[in-house]
Amino acid sequence: MPTDVIFRSATRDDVPAIVALLADDAIGAGREGDVDAYWAAFADIEADPRNHLIVADIDGEVAGTLQLTFIPGLSRMGTERAQIEAVRVGGAHRGQGLGHRMIEWAIGEARRRGCGLVQLTSDKRRTDAIRFYESLGFAATHEGMKLPL
Amino acid sequence: MPTDVIFRSATRDDVPAIVALLADDAIGAGREGDVDAYWAAFADIEADPRNHLIVADIDGEVAGTLQLTFIPGLSRMGTERAQIEAVRVGGAHRGQGLGHRMIEWAIGEARRRGCGLVQLTSDKRRTDAIRFYESLGFAATHEGMKLPL
Repeated sequence: MPTDVIFRSATRDDVPAIVALLADDAIGAGREGDVDAYWAAFADIEADPRNHLIVADIDGEVAGTLQLTFIPGLSRMGTERAQIEAVRVGGAHRGQGLGHRMIEWAIGEARRRGCGLVQLTSDKRRTDAIRFYESLGFAATHEGMKLPL
Repeated sequence: MPTDVIFRSATRDDVPAIVALLADDAIGAGREGDVDAYWAAFADIEADPRNHLIVADIDGEVAGTLQLTFIPGLSRMGTERAQIEAVRVGGAHRGQGLGHRMIEWAIGEARRRGCGLVQLTSDKRRTDAIRFYESLGFAATHEGMKLPL
């Protein structure tokens, strides 16, 4: 279990390391590339107070990443929800509880902000990830439906 | 099939009708109430350029509603995704293709904006809704996981 993890907002300098984490993944590999679009996307995230791209920093290295989006809404009596996307842990840091700490950290941020719900979707092929989220209290009550354009 | 539907951003005056639609639902009924929190939530949505609370207006009546959130992200080569939440069609307007028109409209907005993906989650108990989204091209590839706080 790493003890010296810092959770912080990603900077522009972290973008290549984050993209490398997104690509270092059985499902994600075919979806990433060497494109300029990442810079524009990072600028969009950085400019938005409801979107937070987070890195788990261990000794200056980007060991993990996730994105947290706070979504306002009328339903459930005006509950703001926190959504977690793009969770990745670097290969050298897997199996040491870092993912667990990252999600617990994100849940803590949501709670501190007063969100009533945390939500995420996980590819059905990621059976280990789904069990992991269930162990953290998430329930797979919904179908996560996607339509690529 | 209604022919005179106008899709427009919700105004403050629409909030009670939208909340009534959210509550007029087998699953949603127990989650709504008569609380002031809706007004704060509406103000949050209205202030955010990435969140759009939409009403399907038929002759001045709120016949349906959905929320569209545009989420920037690095993954999938910096793809912005459109997320649909809180879809409801009023009881008097069901079975006439209005839901279909609402989702097609939302997909069109996402496409016009250049989003690479449209996503939503649907409660697994809503088997009709899931079939409906599949008929519009969505695939239930993910588990939609929720953690109430």
